[in-house]
Amino acid sequence: MNAPTAHQHLAPAVTQRDVPAEFIAALQARFGTNCATAQAIREQHGRDESAFTHVPPPAAVVFAQCTQDVSDAVALAAQHKVPVIPFGVGSSLEGHLLAVQGGISVDVSRMNKVLSINAEDLTVTVQPGVTRKQLNEEIKSTGLFFPIDPGADASIGGMSATRASGTNAVRYGTMRENVLALEVVTASGEVIRTGTRAKKSAAGYDLTRLMVGSEGTLGVMTEITLRIYPLPEAVSAAICSFPSIEAAVHTTIATIQMGVPIARVELIDNNTIRMVNHYAKLGLAETPMLLMEFHGSPAGVKEQAETVQDIAAEYGGQSFEWATTPEERTRLWTARHNAYFAAIQSKPGCRAISTDTCVPISKLADCLLDSIDEADATGLPYFLVGHVGDGNFHFGYLIDPNNAEECATAEDLNHKLVMRALRLGGTCTGEHGIGLHKMDFLRAETGEGAVDMMRTIKRALDPHNIMNPGKIFSL
Amino acid sequence: MNAPTAHQHLAPAVTQRDVPAEFIAALQARFGTNCATAQAIREQHGRDESAFTHVPPPAAVVFAQCTQDVSDAVALAAQHKVPVIPFGVGSSLEGHLLAVQGGISVDVSRMNKVLSINAEDLTVTVQPGVTRKQLNEEIKSTGLFFPIDPGADASIGGMSATRASGTNAVRYGTMRENVLALEVVTASGEVIRTGTRAKKSAAGYDLTRLMVGSEGTLGVMTEITLRIYPLPEAVSAAICSFPSIEAAVHTTIATIQMGVPIARVELIDNNTIRMVNHYAKLGLAETPMLLMEFHGSPAGVKEQAETVQDIAAEYGGQSFEWATTPEERTRLWTARHNAYFAAIQSKPGCRAISTDTCVPISKLADCLLDSIDEADATGLPYFLVGHVGDGNFHFGYLIDPNNAEECATAEDLNHKLVMRALRLGGTCTGEHGIGLHKMDFLRAETGEGAVDMMRTIKRALDPHNIMNPGKIFSL
Repeated sequence: MNAPTAHQHLAPAVTQRDVPAEFIAALQARFGTNCATAQAIREQHGRDESAFTHVPPPAAVVFAQCTQDVSDAVALAAQHKVPVIPFGVGSSLEGHLLAVQGGISVDVSRMNKVLSINAEDLTVTVQPGVTRKQLNEEIKSTGLFFPIDPGADASIGGMSATRASGTNAVRYGTMRENVLALEVVTASGEVIRTGTRAKKSAAGYDLTRLMVGSEGTLGVMTEITLRIYPLPEAVSAAICSFPSIEAAVHTTIATIQMGVPIARVELIDNNTIRMVNHYAKLGLAETPMLLMEFHGSPAGVKEQAETVQDIAAEYGGQSFEWATTPEERTRLWTARHNAYFAAIQSKPGCRAISTDTCVPISKLADCLLDSIDEADATGLPYFLVGHVGDGNFHFGYLIDPNNAEECATAEDLNHKLVMRALRLGGTCTGEHGIGLHKMDFLRAETGEGAVDMMRTIKRALDPHNIMNPGKIFSL
Repeated sequence: MNAPTAHQHLAPAVTQRDVPAEFIAALQARFGTNCATAQAIREQHGRDESAFTHVPPPAAVVFAQCTQDVSDAVALAAQHKVPVIPFGVGSSLEGHLLAVQGGISVDVSRMNKVLSINAEDLTVTVQPGVTRKQLNEEIKSTGLFFPIDPGADASIGGMSATRASGTNAVRYGTMRENVLALEVVTASGEVIRTGTRAKKSAAGYDLTRLMVGSEGTLGVMTEITLRIYPLPEAVSAAICSFPSIEAAVHTTIATIQMGVPIARVELIDNNTIRMVNHYAKLGLAETPMLLMEFHGSPAGVKEQAETVQDIAAEYGGQSFEWATTPEERTRLWTARHNAYFAAIQSKPGCRAISTDTCVPISKLADCLLDSIDEADATGLPYFLVGHVGDGNFHFGYLIDPNNAEECATAEDLNHKLVMRALRLGGTCTGEHGIGLHKMDFLRAETGEGAVDMMRTIKRALDPHNIMNPGKIFSL
């Protein structure tokens, strides 16, 4: 394992490539007012929810209304060898949207139609700008839902591009498992289709899965076919307090190992509960907590809940609170939904540097506990939440972005955490993607050979390196 | 959609590439008696379970004992630009193992160790020559199992290479969902790793999924990490007779749409039951039948079974027979397990040409019924079995391989069936792969653009086209 150096900088290397004036003129001729060059619009498209700063915005923003728009914008960019960065709602945490090599942003947020709902087949086809909440609103009347919930109301295009997951993944899988088929504009502007609406296929290379998680570096998704699921007949939620993180984690491990089909199991540490109590005026016990959700038939949900309650009791879990109505469930989950905002508000002007390691579940306690000790030793404030059923958790180190020492401390903690996760057979990113920040970690995780294979694929499919260049790996 | 021409030939085009004598000498120097050139061994490695004939065998067979052996064999082949065909147990149905461009076979069947069992994480790492039955035997004592069951006792390497699935996929997914990580020898002989033991990851391109289903054309898998599952606390099986195929299919559709987590749901048509009755001396009602299996807690299994029984009753399902002990379940499933052999024996000297379409489940009845009418109209005998919960089914047309007319009839039926499936939003292959036979269908299914992208990836990763050339697409 090659150890990347710690203390990576939050101001990434910027290599502005040439954006010819005639290219911008050609875009304006083709797109009229849907090609914007106003400073404010460019700046809005040149940042995301990451902590990265000091990157100049893209030279122009094209608001695509349809696949042909995307195809034409990319074809023009290919002709002039100008970088193209797809943009959904801007909720990336890893700098995916930053124009580190200049170029243009192609905003697909107006491509926000649900194109077809196939309730009988449990599939739906959407444009990339549809957000997950919008999708669930539009399919609600069918009795079906799309479970993937990364927290933010992200676009389906962005979620596909980063292989997102979130709280429901422990039962329903990630975007890897839930994208069935794609329409993609390639780096030359050509429109191709991958996959079908069939639930499974052995037809050639799995281009769908190659595109999912490629972070905009191989093409722009313009249609996405997803699996959807029957709304469970019964849903039951619970919170449970534990004497220690270890007890909460061991409860989770035993639950998964017994094959209980739990739909959500989220950890919040005592420190984060304290922030949430302050922020949302809650009176939760300031001990580590698991938030759980069970989906199924009424009898099935009851059985799952009883099994987990028995397991939790063995590890000292107490103060089980149950909720079965939507309102009560929302109340119980308030702490989880507010964790990020509570943390950010606890330190005015701060930004959160979020970690995203994911380890085999048997290693979860080891990985978490050692990393908590390390973080506590620095005195840097943080929040800690985790999709612990999948072995995935997030520290959010709260830093003043102008304080070099805090930045270095956070980077150092993250570095140690990732190296620990890799030693334990895990990954540097469960769901946020590599982006700008984890390139060295990717090399450490998978080795030069695999990264070279990724580069070879990238060079073959995008010979001028125009699709979101400078992300995932250096070329 | 480009319609491929029907009446494709069962004797595929053969383009023997040069296999220099010095290359064979170098293999023999490196591998000694583990490099075989005896006619019988070469012939055994030059065929599979497909109906293809008249392809000369590979020039030599290397029996690899370890990753280094595979790496060295491929590196030598790369140096001499000689094709390499990985070989597991030879159970391909699509001609994957045929040396249509000459070259050597690399037999990995002696790489048959289960390398590690991580029961707590529900993962196992195996060498590619481990068969699925061997794997289940070796992990039985842990209370875990590997559910993917394509019928044949295939090797895990072959199953991964063809993105196999089978009867349990409706609940547990296919090899696409169940391979977590790989060690792969690339076309240059380099050894790379993809993926980790973490349950999910957003770390760069999904090379694991690119390799799974690539049919040996991008590299040789030398280690495979799989998801495994807790043996269900309770298992219950049932068979049910229906007045028509349509009734059986609609029962299946309703079951899936209601979200019942059925573990297996297999269709056998009346015609096939007749053959099985004759072959295995059973007295089953000669009407279409569903064979089902339910996994879960005792209460959960009971609930699932009652729900499905209610649905079946609405469609005229009758003579439900239940089994909960392993012995009774085996008895009930005898018909399914014997379908292929019963059919083959019903027409001495015949071979079965197996179709493999998979459609969105709402289209299953349409696709099946029209294709049955077409097949019946020709008078060609066939058997029909289906993993209908996934929309996947197989006609096995029973042909005399020396009878050109029968071959043409079977090809014509398959052609019509595939075109119908594609029109209905399905795929030409649910689980067998493209191999030699479905290249035109792949183009029709996914379009030239996507096939060109596959070719571009292939050329980039295997510039001398030595990895199982002539499969999936022409170059």
